[in-house]
Amino acid sequence: MTIDLKSFSSHHLPLINEEMLETIQVLASEDSLRESMRYSVIAGGKRLRPLLLLATLAFFDHKIEKGHYQLAAALEMIHTYSLIHDDLPAMDNDDLRRGQPTNHIVFGEGLAILAGDALLNEALYLVSDSELDNESKVWLMKQLTLAAGSAGMIGGQVADIEGEERPLSLDELQSVHRRKTGALIKFAVEAGSYLAKVDEHIFIEMGLFAENFGIAFQIKDDLLDVLGDEALIGKKTGMDATLNKSTYTSLLGVKGAQTALQEHYTKAIAALDEVKKIIGKPMEVSLLEQLIETLMV
Amino acid sequence: MTIDLKSFSSHHLPLINEEMLETIQVLASEDSLRESMRYSVIAGGKRLRPLLLLATLAFFDHKIEKGHYQLAAALEMIHTYSLIHDDLPAMDNDDLRRGQPTNHIVFGEGLAILAGDALLNEALYLVSDSELDNESKVWLMKQLTLAAGSAGMIGGQVADIEGEERPLSLDELQSVHRRKTGALIKFAVEAGSYLAKVDEHIFIEMGLFAENFGIAFQIKDDLLDVLGDEALIGKKTGMDATLNKSTYTSLLGVKGAQTALQEHYTKAIAALDEVKKIIGKPMEVSLLEQLIETLMV
Repeated sequence: MTIDLKSFSSHHLPLINEEMLETIQVLASEDSLRESMRYSVIAGGKRLRPLLLLATLAFFDHKIEKGHYQLAAALEMIHTYSLIHDDLPAMDNDDLRRGQPTNHIVFGEGLAILAGDALLNEALYLVSDSELDNESKVWLMKQLTLAAGSAGMIGGQVADIEGEERPLSLDELQSVHRRKTGALIKFAVEAGSYLAKVDEHIFIEMGLFAENFGIAFQIKDDLLDVLGDEALIGKKTGMDATLNKSTYTSLLGVKGAQTALQEHYTKAIAALDEVKKIIGKPMEVSLLEQLIETLMV
Repeated sequence: MTIDLKSFSSHHLPLINEEMLETIQVLASEDSLRESMRYSVIAGGKRLRPLLLLATLAFFDHKIEKGHYQLAAALEMIHTYSLIHDDLPAMDNDDLRRGQPTNHIVFGEGLAILAGDALLNEALYLVSDSELDNESKVWLMKQLTLAAGSAGMIGGQVADIEGEERPLSLDELQSVHRRKTGALIKFAVEAGSYLAKVDEHIFIEMGLFAENFGIAFQIKDDLLDVLGDEALIGKKTGMDATLNKSTYTSLLGVKGAQTALQEHYTKAIAALDEVKKIIGKPMEVSLLEQLIETLMV
């Protein structure tokens, strides 16, 4: 039977939110810090990375347990910290995020920086304190810090900021996004595959799925900036063009970007189909396919 | 035979520096980010936390191995990240640190924030990737993120910034510093004791030593701000008074602060003596005593 993404989300997301809020509640030793962390954590967001992790576990019919919610919460906390820091005046200088004032607008820059620091720190606390076994914790910590760190997300953010000063090639653009958004997306899928104890060949296919998912996600984001409805996406559109920023649409045009999106979608689906064939999974529409389809509408 | 702190430091510190620099070299995927991280890591500093960790291992005659250098390097990277972020305009707004321009003065605020983020992230990568066993890694990760996070160092920094707006009581001041500087110092000593596999009773005594060390360290810092030589300590003196900041000297006077420093020194030494008695260690002057004596000159 096909599981529906909407009911899957509404069952699991509250448990992930609970893990995030409880961690903040227990650890934060100052009210203002706690409020600042909470504010950004509950500010909404699609919870894409946690959903990818749990949907991957479901794809392999792996039971979803407390340790997985804790890891999913950690992943979302790291994503949230990166948004708080990216929005700062010294970086993207955004006043609005998901339709609400950004963290530093509400709490001031100092507290926003510290709330970000704390979310990164507490995310890794949560993994180390989780109900997973020690071997898994160490593997996950290592891969997560690789994905989030200067080889991954942070390196991508630096390249993105520096790339604003000149036109990028398509290769350079992909190198930015493979790290800036791709690394955590890939971690989510690989962590789920690792915890489901899949064979190496399957692990590699899942990595391919995740890479293509990540690129498709970024192309969609660039398309929304050109075509999207401000009220719907909760942030200013047309910003990339105003900033003269290289994007998939500026390099390929809207049509070319739509074609590229379709290509990466097809590759992602092909990787999943390959895995289904290997493990003899029925060809029903999995949650992972439903997730990538949300990029295609 | 008594080991001399100076020769101990000159033997071990280069190996800790190497771990830090190699980690940055391998992981940082952008030159500017790498340079910014390197700049603050090699900017000097006493390497107090790494030395406390290794001196604790030496205190228990535990062999010092690569995994310990990796943990020591992680500890110093976390300390370094916290300095970069504390120096930012939105926080302490310091232009000078250890006699050199602060990170954001050289690299700009955006890169300074990201270099700090990356150092925290890479520090935890280094622990997860170290040569320690998995059980130790998980224990250390958990304690380190507790000490560095919003229950520890970050919470202390928030309390410190907010405390600038009003006079603090002595209890409040201690609560700031127990977290802001004390938590990582205590972690260094407790991690060394844990890795040396000491009994619980000894672990608790070592914690007492570390707590008193931490307070003594802060009192000394406050005294230096009043009595110190700018050229010698590499930063502006008299800053606390200018900022109307509560300190040990503002609350107790210089004489009172000196007496308090002596008291915490005595308590720290008493805790060490208790441990020496339990483990039948000769009453020679250990490296830990030499370290705390550096605060007394």
